[in-house]
Amino acid sequence: MYIAPVDDIAFTLKHVAGLKAALEEGAFGDLDEDTVDAILHEAGRFASDEVAPLGDIGDKQGSKLVDGAVRTPDGWADLYRRWAEGGWNGLTAPEEFGGQALPHLLNVAALEMWNSGSMAFALCPTLTMGAVEAIAAHGSSELKATYLEKLVSGTWTGTMNLTEPHAGSDLAALKSRAERAADGSYRIFGQKIYITWGEHDAAENIIHLVLARLPDAPAGTRGISLFLVPKFLPDAAGNPGERNDLFCHALEHKLGIHGSPTCTMIFGDGRYGAEKGAIGWIVGEENKGLACMFTMMNNARLAVGMQGVAICEAATQKAIAYAKERTQGKAPGTQAVGMSPVIEHPDIARTLLTMKALTQGSRAISFSCAHATDMSHARSEPAERKFWQERAALLTPIAKSFSTDAGVDVASLGIQVHGGMGFIEETGAARYLRDARIAPIYEGTNGIQAIDLVMRKLPLSEGSHVRGFIAELKEQSQAVRAANNPELGETARYLDQSIADLEEATEWLLATMGKGETAAVLAGATPYQRLFGLALTGVYLAKGALVSVDDGQGAKRVALCRFTAENLLAETSALKDRVISGAASLEAARTVLG
Amino acid sequence: MYIAPVDDIAFTLKHVAGLKAALEEGAFGDLDEDTVDAILHEAGRFASDEVAPLGDIGDKQGSKLVDGAVRTPDGWADLYRRWAEGGWNGLTAPEEFGGQALPHLLNVAALEMWNSGSMAFALCPTLTMGAVEAIAAHGSSELKATYLEKLVSGTWTGTMNLTEPHAGSDLAALKSRAERAADGSYRIFGQKIYITWGEHDAAENIIHLVLARLPDAPAGTRGISLFLVPKFLPDAAGNPGERNDLFCHALEHKLGIHGSPTCTMIFGDGRYGAEKGAIGWIVGEENKGLACMFTMMNNARLAVGMQGVAICEAATQKAIAYAKERTQGKAPGTQAVGMSPVIEHPDIARTLLTMKALTQGSRAISFSCAHATDMSHARSEPAERKFWQERAALLTPIAKSFSTDAGVDVASLGIQVHGGMGFIEETGAARYLRDARIAPIYEGTNGIQAIDLVMRKLPLSEGSHVRGFIAELKEQSQAVRAANNPELGETARYLDQSIADLEEATEWLLATMGKGETAAVLAGATPYQRLFGLALTGVYLAKGALVSVDDGQGAKRVALCRFTAENLLAETSALKDRVISGAASLEAARTVLG
Repeated sequence: MYIAPVDDIAFTLKHVAGLKAALEEGAFGDLDEDTVDAILHEAGRFASDEVAPLGDIGDKQGSKLVDGAVRTPDGWADLYRRWAEGGWNGLTAPEEFGGQALPHLLNVAALEMWNSGSMAFALCPTLTMGAVEAIAAHGSSELKATYLEKLVSGTWTGTMNLTEPHAGSDLAALKSRAERAADGSYRIFGQKIYITWGEHDAAENIIHLVLARLPDAPAGTRGISLFLVPKFLPDAAGNPGERNDLFCHALEHKLGIHGSPTCTMIFGDGRYGAEKGAIGWIVGEENKGLACMFTMMNNARLAVGMQGVAICEAATQKAIAYAKERTQGKAPGTQAVGMSPVIEHPDIARTLLTMKALTQGSRAISFSCAHATDMSHARSEPAERKFWQERAALLTPIAKSFSTDAGVDVASLGIQVHGGMGFIEETGAARYLRDARIAPIYEGTNGIQAIDLVMRKLPLSEGSHVRGFIAELKEQSQAVRAANNPELGETARYLDQSIADLEEATEWLLATMGKGETAAVLAGATPYQRLFGLALTGVYLAKGALVSVDDGQGAKRVALCRFTAENLLAETSALKDRVISGAASLEAARTVLG
Repeated sequence: MYIAPVDDIAFTLKHVAGLKAALEEGAFGDLDEDTVDAILHEAGRFASDEVAPLGDIGDKQGSKLVDGAVRTPDGWADLYRRWAEGGWNGLTAPEEFGGQALPHLLNVAALEMWNSGSMAFALCPTLTMGAVEAIAAHGSSELKATYLEKLVSGTWTGTMNLTEPHAGSDLAALKSRAERAADGSYRIFGQKIYITWGEHDAAENIIHLVLARLPDAPAGTRGISLFLVPKFLPDAAGNPGERNDLFCHALEHKLGIHGSPTCTMIFGDGRYGAEKGAIGWIVGEENKGLACMFTMMNNARLAVGMQGVAICEAATQKAIAYAKERTQGKAPGTQAVGMSPVIEHPDIARTLLTMKALTQGSRAISFSCAHATDMSHARSEPAERKFWQERAALLTPIAKSFSTDAGVDVASLGIQVHGGMGFIEETGAARYLRDARIAPIYEGTNGIQAIDLVMRKLPLSEGSHVRGFIAELKEQSQAVRAANNPELGETARYLDQSIADLEEATEWLLATMGKGETAAVLAGATPYQRLFGLALTGVYLAKGALVSVDDGQGAKRVALCRFTAENLLAETSALKDRVISGAASLEAARTVLG
């Protein structure tokens, strides 16, 4: 059973992501380490003791559509209520609406733990947090007054209605429409698919944020507006009143996250209300809906990245526990009688350490990304704000893609460690792979993250941001060399090589972009993204290994850092090669695809 | 919908695996190319038109245990009957029992196609073929006379009963027992798990091959005997008679291959028959059961490898078809109006070409392995037989592991290409991943294949077999260089490097083994196995690219060969590095696992 790795998480956010230094210089007011630790411990307790035990039941039962209503798995509605009562929904929300206005990083750390317990469950609050963010940033004061307190407390939940059958990655193609009503509200019509927690029985109201087009809107993405469309229209007292003209038409049968209802939503077909049309209100300005979406996008992408980290952690814990218990064969060199625990076999140990390394690496990248967002808000000096905004922008696609790819890989390795048992659903190892598999897809596929990374993030400040970052990484490698710790083996040499690979690939991409050779840049985007993630994994693990704190884990951090450097980092040279040399052969081979 | 790639398969077996040359020198009697083509086309037709359409229904319905009997999915029993009537079960079986005694390679090619249609369905005959092989090689003349004709025709099916809860990879631990009866038969008692097609309604009898211990057997693997235990005891006329004392107690709920009933079998608990004990007959000698198993093991492992190839092919076909249909965004450089088919986006094209490369590579390795087995039978000169036996022995773990790992990776990439649709079960892309995930586990996990490769296969003929093989690979690379075809780009350079990496890793492993450092050898086994598979992928694709046949596909083979070399082969250096440098840090990091 999952036990929240509170100490690992606390170490990574303080010493690797940089929270400790920021707290010490007062970046987050009077927030101190003790409070951070207390929050993490309490979140860890809730995730381990309350969420995780209901994860399997959620997978087995799934959410079901019965007579137009969605029934969540046994115990989930109550779990959600207790979770919301714990105040977890409002960790980072504005204080004026009942939130705690804590750093985003703390919420990200907690998200990891909820998702390890049950990714399907954690999706519900993840969507609500996105809605809070959008309304807080772009909503009118009436919308804020009516909706934010209920959403921050978790009494109501939120959704994002973006996708339509022909508009997934490409929102320009969407067709849902909105009409202006005389009272300043709108009527919404259309069908949306893949709406996570679009309908359920865990909260008294559901607030949909819906992208749609006005009749006179320009074509493409400049003609998209964002609307707030509640399931129940609030009455004069602000309580759920009349049913709005929208409903859940069907649930998808998915590979994983069975507990999370993935809804097809129908707006404005006349099932409810006196006349057709779901009543909605504009969020932000007309035709600026996409800009509102972009506000949320970085946080939402990082939240999906945390699902990857969470699956890595949970799958690794489960595999290690099994490998200690299960005995087969004789490990080399063992003197013990009888069969050896399979963890003693070198191949299993290698597998488990690889899982550990990917878990720690993706966590460190994701936390560093969240910390950058926090710093961009904490700083007042414009150049500093810009620096941290760019850092967060650069790290976001890497955090999302590297962590979610790692989630799939680690879950798959976890099945392998279980042998035949891994393929049996009751074991629970297969669920992690089934759940993990959506994360590289939604909230922008990892291929789209890679496009974002090379096309929009590398050019930030004419390339000087990424170059500055690479210079920081080199300093880290020099620190490893200076530490002169024989237990770190060849870590410095591998780090140097990986950073050199990253630098070479980066410069090639910037130069090729400068020549206008977009197709060649795009061809190398995915291997570049992975190269960046691997190099950061090496650097962040080394950063942690150099920290001296008296927690008894220092030697382990050093050993895992060395294992990571000497076993995983050599791949960066092959990836650099693919970035630089792969495009020509790719173009030539297009005929193969017919 | 899957369309059997008969031309690709025919090309690979003739020109890459070596069947054409062998046919020309008469290695397989009067078998000629036309007959081979005719068999492949007919198998392809049956796989595409008959098996594949029932694959999804098998996944959705699964096999069910109802009142002690297993009900296979709708249409499957009839499909099996038609398949057996087609004579497919006896392709390689001895002629005296109704088989066609064709080369193993043809059966392997056909297996690929059945498995692409439905891996769950194809498992049934795969197991029967194993039983035929064991009985033909080790059974008494009575057993052969009673069982082989029915099994070869597919009228009866066969199973392998090896695994017990505490004896999976490690058969030394198994506890099922056998007692000698006065009439020379035996009584079998015990519980077996994970018995594929252990009970079903598609054939009139099921012949179980069961590993068990005699009361006076030595401990460990030298005390294991193999027994033939039929579900129904044949009557005097050789037809199914009295029910034997065995039954299916439960079916597993698995991640995939839902159509294939995975049974817990109970032998000898008295449910059937006058007295307790399932009646069985020894196959081979007492306490030599494991040797009988080893007879089948190479072919069984290759058969599982074919499941990997099959999933690669089917998942790739499906992803390409979707990527041509689905439009999103604008591909770079396109002049077309509207959204582009996603196949035009470089990242998707790269993904699909990677899938193609892994498919062709794993197919070529697997076919080469089957051809080596055929040649070892076709040759009469002892040195030649030994050469081909060693070649098959060396290639088997690579074919099994590389193909099944590729199956998982390619199926996962296939989901990714489908975007959100890939996560929806109705799409069918997710099934390939669910089915594929067992293949790296059963029939010896891929970690065990790697141990076999480094500990038993590298030392064959004191290392001279593998060294000779590497010399052959170098010749192939020289042929690429000599061809001087600019369309092959940097293929020769990448091949040279990969083969050099393979050679360096091989010599290091042999030397380290010579020093008795087993743990270090085992630590590098899995990366070495993958390194070998990747290098072979490069070499075999190059071999195909150099063949000049007038089939209009030559330019495509050249382009895919170049893509593979320039995009996938650079990884071998990182793998070599892990083999050679990984062990020390792995030992040091064991403390991390607690």
